[in-house]
Amino acid sequence: MYKIYRQNCPVAKTLDILGDRWTLLIVRDLLKGKARFKDLEASLPGIPTNILADRLKLLEANQIVVRTYYCAHPPRAEYHLTPRGQELSAVIAALALWGARHLSDEQRFELVHTGCGAPVDQQWVCPACGKEIPPLRVHTATIRPE
Amino acid sequence: MYKIYRQNCPVAKTLDILGDRWTLLIVRDLLKGKARFKDLEASLPGIPTNILADRLKLLEANQIVVRTYYCAHPPRAEYHLTPRGQELSAVIAALALWGARHLSDEQRFELVHTGCGAPVDQQWVCPACGKEIPPLRVHTATIRPE
Repeated sequence: MYKIYRQNCPVAKTLDILGDRWTLLIVRDLLKGKARFKDLEASLPGIPTNILADRLKLLEANQIVVRTYYCAHPPRAEYHLTPRGQELSAVIAALALWGARHLSDEQRFELVHTGCGAPVDQQWVCPACGKEIPPLRVHTATIRPE
Repeated sequence: MYKIYRQNCPVAKTLDILGDRWTLLIVRDLLKGKARFKDLEASLPGIPTNILADRLKLLEANQIVVRTYYCAHPPRAEYHLTPRGQELSAVIAALALWGARHLSDEQRFELVHTGCGAPVDQQWVCPACGKEIPPLRVHTATIRPE
């Protein structure tokens, strides 16, 4: 769906890259440290091989993933998130938190702090006010040229 | 793609509902207060009418949207987010923040506090530690039955 939305909105622009089937789950697994094609394929049951290859190329083309070779003959690649790719952890975490709250049935999930194991909360903070603000009080604004 | 992933992971479960083309942009526009079919259609250039109707039905079936009628003859519906639907603002905000940081070209965006207009930041907070934590130090855990 690359650039299907053609909207000058940061949500639509992000979904132009990430909104296609499987892509965000690939990012989720890269965040978990999976790096090799076979490992990604194994953690995504049902993904067609060509779709996984295609999505990794798209992520690479958008500087979300870098490909390196850990074996020259035969060529074998590893995929790692770039810093901008790692920042997608906030998107994955928001999806996980909503799913954990609202969609769990037989098993329940929560998001926990890797350091201490306690459940965590997501907040929006306004540095100007120094206050926590609910997400509904956040909106997108165009930055005026200086 | 309803339930295509079949993974018992809150990210995959969320994307089973929201990961299809257009769905998150519909949620974005419902968050902005758009409520009528024609208004949603107008704000999503290129969306096929049957896809918009289908996505709204899926959101309604998953208690993310409620449909009410503002006119009985002819029947005319309005769509509003439920409280669980409004909580998706955290997902939309995370997508917007990432896009604003990394994908803007001629126009730059930022997320601002609706109250005071200052740029805002997203944080993860651990109530046990009382500390802000980076999203990479957050992971999903299964809650043990009590």
